[in-house]
Amino acid sequence: MRARQLATDYPTVTADSSALEAARLLAEHRLPGLIVVDADRRPMAVLPGSQLLRAIIPRYVQDDPALARVYDETHADQLCAKLADELVADLLPKDRTPPPIVDANATAIEIASIMAATRSPIVAVADDPRRTDAPMIGAITVAGLLTHLLPPSRSD
Amino acid sequence: MRARQLATDYPTVTADSSALEAARLLAEHRLPGLIVVDADRRPMAVLPGSQLLRAIIPRYVQDDPALARVYDETHADQLCAKLADELVADLLPKDRTPPPIVDANATAIEIASIMAATRSPIVAVADDPRRTDAPMIGAITVAGLLTHLLPPSRSD
Repeated sequence: MRARQLATDYPTVTADSSALEAARLLAEHRLPGLIVVDADRRPMAVLPGSQLLRAIIPRYVQDDPALARVYDETHADQLCAKLADELVADLLPKDRTPPPIVDANATAIEIASIMAATRSPIVAVADDPRRTDAPMIGAITVAGLLTHLLPPSRSD
Repeated sequence: MRARQLATDYPTVTADSSALEAARLLAEHRLPGLIVVDADRRPMAVLPGSQLLRAIIPRYVQDDPALARVYDETHADQLCAKLADELVADLLPKDRTPPPIVDANATAIEIASIMAATRSPIVAVADDPRRTDAPMIGAITVAGLLTHLLPPSRSD
């Protein structure tokens, strides 16, 4: 089985999506992060969920987490409202890199090698990723890859 | 709502669990990584799924991923069999650190602050984590925290 068959839909946002939309997508799909694509669906970056939280937390609490205790749940609602005013572009880490991208014809062991080498829990899949205009056709998570690779257990 | 109420069961392994058991747990629960606990359920480390893959891939393929293409699916089965012979202890990254641990009384904004500061998609929850013998009572993911923090959408 090749990357094309192993790839599944994975939620994406663009740099000009609102942070609120990104947060809802991440919460709904129970993901640790989202893939950010450009207008042509080329993967640009990974947006970690922890980075979304930075938009919620006032700067002085980020600097001194002990101050967080003064917030009650009512304040939390007000802080979340800030997400609607921020764009994904504002939240991307400065040291961002695109997720690893594998060729649609890559074998399971090739995909595993790339995940292991990059220590990434996810790879994007594209037809001929060396082409700079190759859109993402899906993604493969480490859990999805292991599900395919592992032999059936004796209780199956 | 405090960390105690937000915490949910999160799959854990110990250093002497087999890598095969860890891989099955990760695949079954669709997780990017597992929490490794000691015999008293104190969190010791996070085992990223990508690290589990290192056990499957021959060293020379790790060094040159281009060699991965020579493997077909039959070989992949044989490589997975290696997981049964390895322990989680053998796969932990050398630079491992425990996951962030929050107090069971931490507020949602305190938890968010700690996740943002440590860039971690997950925190372990313990009663009085300053005690060195405090067992983990559950964990909170960034998606779980956002689900709690986000205002209901208008379509809800």
